[in-house]
Amino acid sequence: MSDLLKKVIDAVVDCREILLSPFSVETKDSVSNLVTSADKAVEQRLKTELLKILPDACFLGEEGSRTEEKTFRFVVDPIDGTANFVRNLNCSAISVGLLKDGVGILGVVYNPFTNELYYAEKGNGAFLNDKPIKVSKRDFSHGLYYTALCIYKKGLAENCINILREVYQQCDDFRREGAAALEICRLASGKAELYFEIRIFPWDCCAAEIILTEAGGVFKHLYTDNCDIAAPFPIIAANNDENLKKLEKIVRKEVPKLPEDYN
Amino acid sequence: MSDLLKKVIDAVVDCREILLSPFSVETKDSVSNLVTSADKAVEQRLKTELLKILPDACFLGEEGSRTEEKTFRFVVDPIDGTANFVRNLNCSAISVGLLKDGVGILGVVYNPFTNELYYAEKGNGAFLNDKPIKVSKRDFSHGLYYTALCIYKKGLAENCINILREVYQQCDDFRREGAAALEICRLASGKAELYFEIRIFPWDCCAAEIILTEAGGVFKHLYTDNCDIAAPFPIIAANNDENLKKLEKIVRKEVPKLPEDYN
Repeated sequence: MSDLLKKVIDAVVDCREILLSPFSVETKDSVSNLVTSADKAVEQRLKTELLKILPDACFLGEEGSRTEEKTFRFVVDPIDGTANFVRNLNCSAISVGLLKDGVGILGVVYNPFTNELYYAEKGNGAFLNDKPIKVSKRDFSHGLYYTALCIYKKGLAENCINILREVYQQCDDFRREGAAALEICRLASGKAELYFEIRIFPWDCCAAEIILTEAGGVFKHLYTDNCDIAAPFPIIAANNDENLKKLEKIVRKEVPKLPEDYN
Repeated sequence: MSDLLKKVIDAVVDCREILLSPFSVETKDSVSNLVTSADKAVEQRLKTELLKILPDACFLGEEGSRTEEKTFRFVVDPIDGTANFVRNLNCSAISVGLLKDGVGILGVVYNPFTNELYYAEKGNGAFLNDKPIKVSKRDFSHGLYYTALCIYKKGLAENCINILREVYQQCDDFRREGAAALEICRLASGKAELYFEIRIFPWDCCAAEIILTEAGGVFKHLYTDNCDIAAPFPIIAANNDENLKKLEKIVRKEVPKLPEDYN
C-alpha cells in the first residue's frame, strides 16, 4: 500500500466518530434530499486533511465544496446513503476517490457502522479490510442486480422500472440498499453482479468505480457529453464484459439517450 | 422477560456458530431456491432445543420439519435470507415464532452477522438488543417501502412491479435487502414504514409479525383461505393503520384476489 493511500485511509477512518455521534437534519431541494450536520462536518474535515496530504490536488465534495482545478482531484461523498444514515439503517459510507488528469487512481469506501473498509489503487488490486477481493464468475442468469429508481427525479422511475422488469426476468434477483458506493463494492467483492443507476453523481461512484475495476469488474458511464465535472450521468457496472454488454443492451433499448430534463 | 422467551433467545443465539462456520450449498426446485448445510443444521438443532423448552409444542420449519399439531406451535426459519447467506451479504436471520392456538405470542429474529437481536412477547412490547423499539410516525409520503418481486414465482413479478411503481410515486423511496424477517423488523424499529410481499411463507414472517405488532405496527394477511399451515400468502405491513389502508388499496387494485397458479 502506498504512503498516499495509507494517509487517505487514516483521514477517512478518523471521521468515524462524526458518523457515530448525534446529528441534526436539514432538507435540500426535496423531502427526499437530505443533508445532516454530519455530512457537512465530514466534508469540511476531509477537505482540510486531504489537501494537507496532497497539496497538488483540488477538491470536489457533494455538499458544495469545490476548489480550483489541479492535476489531481479528490472527489468526496462525506456520507453516501444519507437517507439510510438519518434512519439509522447502518448502510452508509464515506467515499473518497482520487483522479489524476481525470482518471481514477485511488478509491476508499468506508462504512463505519459495519467496519467495512474497501480500497484500491490503480494497478494494485482491490481490498476489503486488507483482504484482496475479486468479482464473481456468475453469469447473467445467476446474477444479483442492484438498482435505484432515481429518488431526486421520480419522472425517471418509469425507465428504471421497465429496466428492472426486464433484467429481473433474466437474472437471479435484485437488491436496493440505498448507498451506491457500497452497492458497487458488493460487485467488487463478488457478492453481486449487475448495477444500473440512471442518474448518479461523481461523488457517489468515483471511489467505487476504481475499487470495482481493480477487483476485475467493469464500469461504464453512458451518454456523458456533459463537461461539468459535478454533473450526474447514467452508469452500468458488472462483474465481467459479457454481463455488462447484456445489461447495456437492455438499458439502451429503454433509454437510448439522456432523457429530457435530466440535469 | 419471561423464562420461556429467555430460553428461546438462548437457543437461537447458540446457533450463531453454525452460521459463522463453513457450509455447503444445494439447490431446491430452482436456481434461486437454495438450501445450505447450515439451514439444515440450525433447523435440526432448534427442533430439538425448542421442543425441550416447551414439550407441549409442535414444530414447523422451512426445511421440512413438521410434527403433529399441538396447542403451541413453533414456526422456524433456520436462515431467512439464504441467498444473502450464500453470497456473504451479512443480511440473514434466524427466525422463531411461537403460536398458541394459531395466535402469535412470541417472536425472535436474530442476525448473527450484525448482532441484531429483535424479540417480542404478546403484551410486553418489542425490543432490539434489549432496548424497546417502536414504529415511526412518518406518513406515507415520507415512508420507506420494502418489497420483493417473488423470486420463486417470477410470473408474479409483473404485479409486484406495478405496485412498486405506484407506491414509489407516493412514498419516499424503496429498499430490498433480501431477508423478509429483518425487513419487517426495520418497520418495527422505526426505520421503514411500508412492506408488501405477494407470496411469503409462515416461517419468513411469523416472528416478525409479532415483533412489528408489539412495536405498534400493523400486519395483514391477504386472501388466506388456504387451510394448510405451511402454505404461502400475500402480506402487507405498515407503521400505522392509515398507511396500511393506503397501501392495501394500491395492492388490492393490482391483485384483487389470489393469482392463478399461486401455490
